Amino acid sequence: MQPYELSVADAAEAVCARQVSPVELVDSVLERIEQVEPRLQAYTMVTADHARDAARRAAGEVAADGTRGPLHGIPAGLKDLIDVAGMATTASSQVRADHLAETDSAVAARLAAAGAAFVGKTHTHEFAYGLTTPQTNNAWDQGRVAGGSSGGSAVAVAAGAATFALGTDTGGSIRVPAALNGVVGLKPTYGLVSRHGVTSLAWSLDHVGPITRTVEDAALVLAALVGHDPRDPASVPAPPVEYRPGPGTDLTGLRVGVPGNYYFERVDPEVEAAVRDAIGQLEALGARLVEVEIPMTRYIQATQWGLMVPEASAYHERTLRAMPDLYAADVRILLEAGELMSAGDYLRAQRARTLMRQAWQQMLDTVDVIAAPTVPLTAVKVGQDTVTWGDGSMESVSDAYVRLSAPANITGVPSLTVPVGRDSEGMPIGMQLMGRPLGEAAVLRVGHAYEQTGAARDLAPAA
Amino acid sequence: MQPYELSVADAAEAVCARQVSPVELVDSVLERIEQVEPRLQAYTMVTADHARDAARRAAGEVAADGTRGPLHGIPAGLKDLIDVAGMATTASSQVRADHLAETDSAVAARLAAAGAAFVGKTHTHEFAYGLTTPQTNNAWDQGRVAGGSSGGSAVAVAAGAATFALGTDTGGSIRVPAALNGVVGLKPTYGLVSRHGVTSLAWSLDHVGPITRTVEDAALVLAALVGHDPRDPASVPAPPVEYRPGPGTDLTGLRVGVPGNYYFERVDPEVEAAVRDAIGQLEALGARLVEVEIPMTRYIQATQWGLMVPEASAYHERTLRAMPDLYAADVRILLEAGELMSAGDYLRAQRARTLMRQAWQQMLDTVDVIAAPTVPLTAVKVGQDTVTWGDGSMESVSDAYVRLSAPANITGVPSLTVPVGRDSEGMPIGMQLMGRPLGEAAVLRVGHAYEQTGAARDLAPAA
Repeated sequence: MQPYELSVADAAEAVCARQVSPVELVDSVLERIEQVEPRLQAYTMVTADHARDAARRAAGEVAADGTRGPLHGIPAGLKDLIDVAGMATTASSQVRADHLAETDSAVAARLAAAGAAFVGKTHTHEFAYGLTTPQTNNAWDQGRVAGGSSGGSAVAVAAGAATFALGTDTGGSIRVPAALNGVVGLKPTYGLVSRHGVTSLAWSLDHVGPITRTVEDAALVLAALVGHDPRDPASVPAPPVEYRPGPGTDLTGLRVGVPGNYYFERVDPEVEAAVRDAIGQLEALGARLVEVEIPMTRYIQATQWGLMVPEASAYHERTLRAMPDLYAADVRILLEAGELMSAGDYLRAQRARTLMRQAWQQMLDTVDVIAAPTVPLTAVKVGQDTVTWGDGSMESVSDAYVRLSAPANITGVPSLTVPVGRDSEGMPIGMQLMGRPLGEAAVLRVGHAYEQTGAARDLAPAA
Repeated sequence: MQPYELSVADAAEAVCARQVSPVELVDSVLERIEQVEPRLQAYTMVTADHARDAARRAAGEVAADGTRGPLHGIPAGLKDLIDVAGMATTASSQVRADHLAETDSAVAARLAAAGAAFVGKTHTHEFAYGLTTPQTNNAWDQGRVAGGSSGGSAVAVAAGAATFALGTDTGGSIRVPAALNGVVGLKPTYGLVSRHGVTSLAWSLDHVGPITRTVEDAALVLAALVGHDPRDPASVPAPPVEYRPGPGTDLTGLRVGVPGNYYFERVDPEVEAAVRDAIGQLEALGARLVEVEIPMTRYIQATQWGLMVPEASAYHERTLRAMPDLYAADVRILLEAGELMSAGDYLRAQRARTLMRQAWQQMLDTVDVIAAPTVPLTAVKVGQDTVTWGDGSMESVSDAYVRLSAPANITGVPSLTVPVGRDSEGMPIGMQLMGRPLGEAAVLRVGHAYEQTGAARDLAPAA
């Protein structure tokens, strides 16, 4: 096994036991990047020198004082919306051609303090405003979309081109590409992880979180990221929690909500079958399945778009006026449309969100987690814009990809996606586990228990 | 001294000592109402039977078990935006002609639980959307405005037609009429008092709070109102605090911020002199005066209006379509204008508020309270729409009345107005004491200490 193939947990153990040095680990991942990047294009920039410096420092520190924690010397990719002092934050956009971040974002500073080595910045759908990440290719099939907007991060982790990565999620942007590339992605509770120094798409929906190859790894990265930060107005002080799931897989007494509406409607039969099979595994582990009714479903799409579109336009107001032609056409049109929205429409969405949060909280009083598909279909071929469902209805691929992930953005509840197999064309399928606000430990415990049932966990091939 | 002249604290003491029964107290206030209402028109509805029932119940309870607390059997007026089960909530509007509240608002329920006797619902500027309350006359001069929007509550308390009252404050609507009628008004920290069951003007700026004749009374009423309420999405859990100020008046060690900008600009010289004299009294009590610079002042008006106008229009959307002619012209025009605002303008105001809150928090790190005029001019004559300042600039009376109170709505900090004398025409002048978020105890302590210096505290005359 090559060092780049190690999970965070295994790499940390190997570093701790002096079996692998951070320098070997980083060199191995950098080599893997060289090998797969021509095909995948996951990175906007590979920061080999920066990573090697960090690895050498980590190696010295580990030799002198032992490891600082499970991320010490671990190679990480950062979605290129996340500021690192001295690096450009391009947001995969020509608008940011001359950008240079002067200070670290909160999450970069926290990972650096934990000893992580940044191997590069990963591609995002331009300014996170889209579900495909067109620059990047799916880790499992070069002719298919990476998903987005954190496409680069998910593809890099899936291919062994980063031991873990960070993404951002405004309507599914961590979970969608994680699901489409067969890796784990966690959108934490709104406000749990600081967004200071992270380029915003829509501040009332934006989240930062980990993309990893195992649920345990997601827990380890999350633990390094959390902490109150007054520089993010939405940051909440959270009580200290042990996120790392224990070794046991017994779920006796746990109530898993299975949606009777919404989440299994207009879903590819292969996706549905894989997710229902995974839910059956949870039951086999002792969980009690409880049917839940998702509230206010006919307001989900309008609320998500009603909040996201004007906030995004407000954020981009100046640059959109100054340099409209530097935006990709799809993003520019959305930003321009957002300027025409009325305050009344925005406020209607805000009020719907308030009601939806309350209704979800009541629903979540009755179960510990909710299990559902992450996306209703697997990675489509590049260029495929629409999908036709069994009921004859047609939907844009973007609308389909965001449809099942948006509720957790609107309500702010934590949502974890875990791989639950592949479809007949070999494309990964994801199951979403949603929990109560600040209930990350519960979703991680359930995801980890499922993972131990032996689901395949291969790296995507090099070519 | 007649029972209607007693403060809440004195009435409570008299009830406790069996010197006055709740029935005598309520009868005395109801008689006073009959006496002054023809001139003042503070009430939309006097609920004599309801109050006498409550008084009889309270009298029996006090006789059997002693008093439940300082509001037991005390006559109270409620601004007619506040639901009481079985009563209309007219919002002083024809739109609400057929209204009937089915359940108590959170604050009405809390006051009822504390044993208060509701003597009536008081006039508001229609739906709280204005600064004058045209139905009601100033308690000191029938030819002058009551101020608003809680004009009825302030006038009733000033005239002895309620022992205390509740108001609401979105841009100054508790403090402005309290100042113009020579009584005490407290806008608590945003989220401290539940607004469930209270008609909204603009939910991100709305507050409920007491109007009383003494600072101590404001503390007693506040203590009964606070408490987390999940039915108000903005409600915050607050730690238990002793709001009632102690008997001492020594302010040694306390830092009182005196604004070097904004709050003394375009202020009537008599108002400025009275407020500066009162600030001098605080210094004489041991406080240290510290000059503070109010941040971001050029954004205050745009932020207040940018938040208030579209939220108000969103709230009234349906009734404005269904029955536009039932609104008064001034309110209808504001509501219609608000429907034309863009989401971008609203979001600009939201972002400015976030920055303003941070800047105020930094400023408030350097002082314990800030002292300033509540309003820049005293009660104007009915029909006076504009004021011309010494620098030759002209301002609408409404803009002037809201100018100095809006910052505490935008930032959410607590603000207490206390009477600090009269101008040469006998009109009351108010001083505003603003504190840190949840710093009610400090502003009440300072206001109470000032009050002990012997400022006149007469009731407004009956005729």
